[in-house]
Amino acid sequence: MTNPGTLHKGWFSEICPMWDGIAISLKVDELLYSQKSRFQQIDLYQTRSHGRMLVLDGIIQLTERDEFCYQEMMAHLPLFSHPQPENVLVIGGGDGGVLREINRHDNVCAIDFCEIDEEVVKVSKQFLPTLACGFDDSRVTVHIKDGAAFVREHPNCYDVIIVDSSDPVGPGEALFENQFYQDLKHALKPGGLIATQGESFFLHPDWVEKLMGITRSLFPIHAYANIIVPTYTGGHIGMCMGSLGPKLLVPARPVPEAFQSQLKYYSPVVHRAAFVLPSFAEKMLKGNGV
Amino acid sequence: MTNPGTLHKGWFSEICPMWDGIAISLKVDELLYSQKSRFQQIDLYQTRSHGRMLVLDGIIQLTERDEFCYQEMMAHLPLFSHPQPENVLVIGGGDGGVLREINRHDNVCAIDFCEIDEEVVKVSKQFLPTLACGFDDSRVTVHIKDGAAFVREHPNCYDVIIVDSSDPVGPGEALFENQFYQDLKHALKPGGLIATQGESFFLHPDWVEKLMGITRSLFPIHAYANIIVPTYTGGHIGMCMGSLGPKLLVPARPVPEAFQSQLKYYSPVVHRAAFVLPSFAEKMLKGNGV
Repeated sequence: MTNPGTLHKGWFSEICPMWDGIAISLKVDELLYSQKSRFQQIDLYQTRSHGRMLVLDGIIQLTERDEFCYQEMMAHLPLFSHPQPENVLVIGGGDGGVLREINRHDNVCAIDFCEIDEEVVKVSKQFLPTLACGFDDSRVTVHIKDGAAFVREHPNCYDVIIVDSSDPVGPGEALFENQFYQDLKHALKPGGLIATQGESFFLHPDWVEKLMGITRSLFPIHAYANIIVPTYTGGHIGMCMGSLGPKLLVPARPVPEAFQSQLKYYSPVVHRAAFVLPSFAEKMLKGNGV
Repeated sequence: MTNPGTLHKGWFSEICPMWDGIAISLKVDELLYSQKSRFQQIDLYQTRSHGRMLVLDGIIQLTERDEFCYQEMMAHLPLFSHPQPENVLVIGGGDGGVLREINRHDNVCAIDFCEIDEEVVKVSKQFLPTLACGFDDSRVTVHIKDGAAFVREHPNCYDVIIVDSSDPVGPGEALFENQFYQDLKHALKPGGLIATQGESFFLHPDWVEKLMGITRSLFPIHAYANIIVPTYTGGHIGMCMGSLGPKLLVPARPVPEAFQSQLKYYSPVVHRAAFVLPSFAEKMLKGNGV
């Protein structure tokens, strides 16, 4: 285990050098799965209060109780920013939760899903059925492959690319580099857009500045959104967005009522408000020209 | 100690029945103060990554690193909602941080500050000077007293009342009851408004529903705002607002540039966005008529 967390008196604690000195802990009743894959340590816990929890290299990826926050925003914020998303690529997110949300969009014709670690998909299918149901849609094609390589090989293919990466340590590292963002841009069709996991402006202002600096240098339209996720350290996570056309800050089309009624986080007003950041973060990104 | 938290290998963990099964932990280098006052256990730590931390009955009240989020929003959201706040009452918040923010407002003539536990004020003055500086303004009058009683004795006195309470266990309990909200209403001048610590819609939807139900029943205008606070469990906290006149959802007057430049969280756009909640929370409050 590269980053085992700490188990003390039945609590799992997410102790990680990326956020030295602060940790979220969840009481766990059972460790349901624990294996090292080719790429990372995968642990799946039954928690006392938050349902099941997926942990990669000691870092909480999701709990059943609040995963909807992240999955809905990672899917619907970019998809409703695009006037007609037909071809979508998802990199990472082996749990299937983002796919589950994308599948709600009738206008999407085909979804390429590229995950480097097949074991994460298997564990999710076995233990997280309410997320892994995302794989059940016939529009989804699964590619077990390095996301950076996959993007390079698919120029001019996608309306929307969503990068549901883990943090910039371990197998996700290349997904935080300039070259990858250049390749993402080339993989877009005209008028396309990208949305990538953008870390926290509280915990990692340096990463947010770096990622938004890259995004700004490559995309004429760029924005940074915030998502509340109570079980991530700091209680929130960001999303970097870059667009070749769509305005991003407001939905490009209405959200049908029947669609909205299925959601627990995203809405058109949430879409707009997600881009409003505490003034220190606004200043930081403006200083960066964003 | 009624709620001591758990210290394990140099970490303080906020283990509390109010959020069973989840806990924030901070690495602590030194326990600078630890005493039981007449009302509660008061602990003051030097943390590794978040400056000093005030803990009451085992519950994190603030860290120096992110206290600005809560203090700014608890002060500026209500004060900028009022067209001309002259007389202000603050109940609780013995650290002085909310006072520090109120003091930035030139139009405020007098601030009554009522805190039940004098020891919290003393500890803050000794260990948290960047917060306790809030007591240094000559417009502030300190009353060491039960807030519920103080409000009853001051009808028709205030433009804005801010209740910076701890949670509804321990000395803050009466501040979460209908009678207290009725007394708050009577303590307002015509066109006045209140803002109270409103818990988390993720962790305590029952408390949020209760408090907003009371607020709605008493105030013609009412709203619930969200504040990001990374070191509170869940990473956020809410604010209940009730108004006899001002609209709340937008600032009632401009924020001068020199004023804005001092702030790290609040801004006019943050003011508006704070009232936008994840759709499940919107539905919950709408179901409650809010």
